[in-house]
Amino acid sequence: MKYGIIIFPTKKVQDEANALRKRYDPHYALIPPHITLKESFEADDETIDELITEMKYIANETEPFKIQINKVSTFAPVTNTIYFKVEPMQQLTDLYEKLHSGKFPDNQQYSFVPHITIAQKLSHDEYSDVFGSLRMRDIKLEDEVDRFQLVYQLDNGSWTVYETFVFGKEKV
Amino acid sequence: MKYGIIIFPTKKVQDEANALRKRYDPHYALIPPHITLKESFEADDETIDELITEMKYIANETEPFKIQINKVSTFAPVTNTIYFKVEPMQQLTDLYEKLHSGKFPDNQQYSFVPHITIAQKLSHDEYSDVFGSLRMRDIKLEDEVDRFQLVYQLDNGSWTVYETFVFGKEKV
Repeated sequence: MKYGIIIFPTKKVQDEANALRKRYDPHYALIPPHITLKESFEADDETIDELITEMKYIANETEPFKIQINKVSTFAPVTNTIYFKVEPMQQLTDLYEKLHSGKFPDNQQYSFVPHITIAQKLSHDEYSDVFGSLRMRDIKLEDEVDRFQLVYQLDNGSWTVYETFVFGKEKV
Repeated sequence: MKYGIIIFPTKKVQDEANALRKRYDPHYALIPPHITLKESFEADDETIDELITEMKYIANETEPFKIQINKVSTFAPVTNTIYFKVEPMQQLTDLYEKLHSGKFPDNQQYSFVPHITIAQKLSHDEYSDVFGSLRMRDIKLEDEVDRFQLVYQLDNGSWTVYETFVFGKEKV
């Protein structure tokens, strides 16, 4: 099965992101707004059980932390994805690194840029319009992160949460 | 915030349900296929924290159990919702009752009929066609339940998982 590891920001941030995703992100219906900690990877039942134990340890050694979003950015010209840029935080990078080392498959394609996607797969003209208008917007969002989630993908491309890992609260 | 408590069946059952939901359920994009244990209820942050502790106790005193789906049924004439009927199980009823007593709001509207919705809000004619054809189908699905999930609703009507409660595995 195909798994991924993500952080859901709180409702306030999700609602802000969805107001844009609704119009500009064809993945809008497949998963709520999120920060990807680990891109999709294949794992069988035995492997995922082992990784779940690891994730509990990782969650237990992580303290809740704040994240800040101060601007809209883009991955262009690599892809024309537009996103809420999450300011780099040591705790986020630590989480990312732990989820890509040890028993975890090292499936990183790019260096880690924490973000919440709000637009993707636009035509070139749409992209220019949307990014041109969003980059001028004054965006200031703050949020607290105290958990991450293991999700798996269904045949229709949507994602279901399999398990939540709350910082400092897991039984191992 | 508006919360709900649900069980996600495994991918196999979800994929079967989605193949039908895609065409017949306008809520298809709002949440993956699920069994509702507790309909939406309002709770503030303090209350939900208290209920989360309760849910951990409830999860810890529940053993994993099997569920069976043997037919497609309907709530007509009350509503024209069509669903995979989940055969009644004492463990499911116990869970339902615990989530509607004690500190939990008793927000039950109907008696508990465990089900996975596959069609709703159809016109009368569509309903008759769809149910007429689905009731003849030979459906046999078995699944194991070992967790439930607390979800909250975003402004667009979709649901995000806040926390997972795995039977016998919660730290309280």
